[in-house]
Amino acid sequence: MKKLSVANLETVSRANKGLGNVQQLHKSGWNIAQQDVSLPCLCLYESRLLNNISWMADYTNQSHVLFAPHGKTTMTPAIFKKQLAAGAYAITVATTAQAVAAVTSGAERVLMANQLIGRANYQQLDDLLSSNEIVFYCLVDNLDNVRMLGEYFANTQHTIHVLIELGVPDGRCGVVNSQLLAELIAEIAKFDSLALAGIEVYEGVLGDPLAVSQFLEYAVATCKQLIADNVFDTKQVMITAGGSAYYDLVCEAFHPDNLTENMLAVLRPGCYVTHDQGIYEQAQQQILARNELACSLGSELTSCLEIWAYVQSMPEPGRAIIGFGKRDAAFDAGFPIPTLHVDQQGQISAANSNWKIEKMMDQHAMMKVPNDTTLRVGDIVAFATSHPCLTFDKWRYINVIDDNYNVVDVVETYF
Amino acid sequence: MKKLSVANLETVSRANKGLGNVQQLHKSGWNIAQQDVSLPCLCLYESRLLNNISWMADYTNQSHVLFAPHGKTTMTPAIFKKQLAAGAYAITVATTAQAVAAVTSGAERVLMANQLIGRANYQQLDDLLSSNEIVFYCLVDNLDNVRMLGEYFANTQHTIHVLIELGVPDGRCGVVNSQLLAELIAEIAKFDSLALAGIEVYEGVLGDPLAVSQFLEYAVATCKQLIADNVFDTKQVMITAGGSAYYDLVCEAFHPDNLTENMLAVLRPGCYVTHDQGIYEQAQQQILARNELACSLGSELTSCLEIWAYVQSMPEPGRAIIGFGKRDAAFDAGFPIPTLHVDQQGQISAANSNWKIEKMMDQHAMMKVPNDTTLRVGDIVAFATSHPCLTFDKWRYINVIDDNYNVVDVVETYF
Repeated sequence: MKKLSVANLETVSRANKGLGNVQQLHKSGWNIAQQDVSLPCLCLYESRLLNNISWMADYTNQSHVLFAPHGKTTMTPAIFKKQLAAGAYAITVATTAQAVAAVTSGAERVLMANQLIGRANYQQLDDLLSSNEIVFYCLVDNLDNVRMLGEYFANTQHTIHVLIELGVPDGRCGVVNSQLLAELIAEIAKFDSLALAGIEVYEGVLGDPLAVSQFLEYAVATCKQLIADNVFDTKQVMITAGGSAYYDLVCEAFHPDNLTENMLAVLRPGCYVTHDQGIYEQAQQQILARNELACSLGSELTSCLEIWAYVQSMPEPGRAIIGFGKRDAAFDAGFPIPTLHVDQQGQISAANSNWKIEKMMDQHAMMKVPNDTTLRVGDIVAFATSHPCLTFDKWRYINVIDDNYNVVDVVETYF
Repeated sequence: MKKLSVANLETVSRANKGLGNVQQLHKSGWNIAQQDVSLPCLCLYESRLLNNISWMADYTNQSHVLFAPHGKTTMTPAIFKKQLAAGAYAITVATTAQAVAAVTSGAERVLMANQLIGRANYQQLDDLLSSNEIVFYCLVDNLDNVRMLGEYFANTQHTIHVLIELGVPDGRCGVVNSQLLAELIAEIAKFDSLALAGIEVYEGVLGDPLAVSQFLEYAVATCKQLIADNVFDTKQVMITAGGSAYYDLVCEAFHPDNLTENMLAVLRPGCYVTHDQGIYEQAQQQILARNELACSLGSELTSCLEIWAYVQSMPEPGRAIIGFGKRDAAFDAGFPIPTLHVDQQGQISAANSNWKIEKMMDQHAMMKVPNDTTLRVGDIVAFATSHPCLTFDKWRYINVIDDNYNVVDVVETYF
C-alpha cells in the first residue's frame, strides 16, 4: 500500500483542496524512521507529552496553586484538551484569536495575559462571549485602555474580568508606580462592564531568582493590601504569574501560608508542556538544584519535540547540510540539537555528540561533523529544539509518535 | 454593518470551521487605518507589489536573462500567478510541497533549488508529475543522491531534469572539486530517468561583489566547457544563479556575449517581489551605485510589506510596547522599522524617525520613543520589515491594500 505522507497532508492545505479531510488522510502504519513521512517534519512524542502534562498538574496540585497553561506556546487544540483534562483552571492566551481557539478546545475560563486593544478585537471577543458561557480575564495597566474597554462593553451584556498588571522598571507591560495603580482602580470602578478580579505579573522579564522572588512577594503584598482596601469586585481575588522558567518560585511565593483565603493563585506555565533541550532544560536544572518538590515527583520534564530532516548535501569533509531551516525550527535561543541518526538501512542510533548545528538559513542548516563521518546524503537526523514556542509556529501539522516512531495521530496548530 | 475582521478569518481556520469560505468572508469596505481589521495583521501594498514584479521583469528582459522567481519567499499562489503573468519562465522552490503549490498556481516549469531527497518526497513528486504536464528541474551534487533519484524514477514514466550545483568552499551545497564533477556526470549518464540539463550556483553565500562575479564567471566557463565536452542531455543548457542581493552581477555574467547560443540563462530572485526597508534595501542601494540599468528603469523596487499593530502598553516614559512579536515578523536581519502612525481619531502620519524597535519577544515588541511622545495605548503603528521570507511565513492570510489602506483582497499563504 502506498502511504500518504504528512507533506502530502500539508500539500492538501497548500494546494487549497480543503483542510477538512486531514484526519481521514492520516493512514495508520506510518513510521517516521521508515521514511513513510515526507521530511522535514515536526514530531511530538506522545508518552513524553503526557508525562509533562501530568508532571506540572502534580507539581501545582501539591503546591496548592491552580494552573492555566499558556496556550500561545503550542496553539494546538489537541494539547489544550489534554491540559484541560489534567485539571487546568483556564487556558492563557495572548490575543483574541488565540482566545477563540482556547474556547473551541473546551476552555471555560480564558485568561488573556495582555491588554485587550482595538475595535475589531473587541468585536471578536464580544462575538465569542455571546456564543459561549465562559469567564474572560484580561490585563489592564493603562487608563486610556480601561476607558475604551469599559465603554465598549457597557454596550454589551458581558462583564470583562480585569486583572491589574504590575510591572518592573525597564520590563515589559505593567504598572510601575502607585499613583497610576490608584488611578486605574478608580477608573475601573466607573464601569459596571468591568470587574476588577485580581493582580497579574509576568516575572519572566527578570533575570535572576532573587529579583523574581522579591517581585512576586511585592505582588502578593500589593494584592493583600488591595483586598484590605476592598477594591476588588469579585469574591475570589486572582493572583497570577507566568512561571515557565521560575514556576517553583511562583509556587513558593503563592503558598497558601502567604495568601488570604479568598485569593486564587494561578500559575501560567507555557513551555513545560513540551519542554526542550535548550533554555528550558537549563532553567529546569536550576530549579532542580533549588527546589525539593521538583526533585521528588518521580519523573522529569522531558523534551518531546523533534525536527526530523534529511542530510541534504555533504559538500566537504567536516560539514553536512541538513534539510531544515529557520522556516522549520526556532533559532533565537540556540540551534536545534542532534538526538538521533537513522541510516539508509533504517538503523536508529543516538546522534554523534560531535555533530553541531552552526548556522541556519531559511531552508537549510549547516552542521559540523567529524571529517571522517560516515553520515551520508539521504540519512535522517532528528533534532531536539530550544524554545518550543518558535518551533510550533512553523508547522500546521504535527506528527504525534510513539516511542517506536510510529505516527499515532496528526494534530493541527492554529497560528 | 458590522464588518468581519481578518482575525475573524484566521479564527475561522483556527477554530477549524473550514477554510473554504475565506473569500466569501472578505467583505468589501474594510480599511486597515479605520480599525476594520483585527491587529496585528500583515499588509501588502498592491500597487507597490505590481511595480516590483514589473520592475524585475523589465530588468531581466532588458538583460536577456529569464527569471524564475523563488517561490519560497512568499509561498503565496496569488503572487506566483502575477509573477507568471509577468513572464516568469518557471517558479523556483525549495521542497516538493512548495513544488505542488507552484504547479497549482499554474507554473509549467518548476526549478527545485535543492537536491530531491527521500522516499516520501520522491512519491510526492511522482504524483505531481503524473497528474500535471510540467518540466521539473532539481539540483544534484552527490553520487548517492544521483543513484537513489535515478533508480526511483527509472520505475516511473518521468524524466527528472538535473542541474549540477557548483559550490564554493565553506559555502552551502554544491560540488567543489573537479573529480566529483566528472564522477557525477558519469553517474547521471547511467540513468535514462535523469536528463543532465545544466549548471546551477547559489552565489548568495558569498559576501562581496568581486567574489560573486568571479564565481559566476567560473560557472559560465565550466558550463561552456561541459557543452564542448557534449555531456548534456538537453538541446538547451540551463545556467542559473540566485540573484536576490546580486541580480545585477548575475545578469552581467550571463550576458548573451558571455554565453553560447544554446545556453538558457535563468535568474532566481526571491525577495525583490516585496523588497524591504532592511537588508534588501541596503543591497539595492549598492546595486544602484554600480549598475546603470537598475538606475534607468524609471521606477524603483519599493518595500511593500507592513505589519500593523496597536500600541499595547506605555509602561514608562521612553518605551512603548507594541502588540506584535517574533510570531508576526522577521527578526533575524534587523527589527521592523516604523513607517506610519494612526492616532485614535484616524489621523495618519509618517512615523516619528526617533521610534525604534529595540527588542522582540514572542508576542510583544519593545519600541524606544522620545520621553515626551504623544503616542498612546490604542494608537496604531505600521512597520516595514527586513527579510520578507521570515515575515511571510508567520501568516496564513495577508491583507492586500490600496494606497489608501483599503483592503482590496485577502490572499492565503501555503507554508
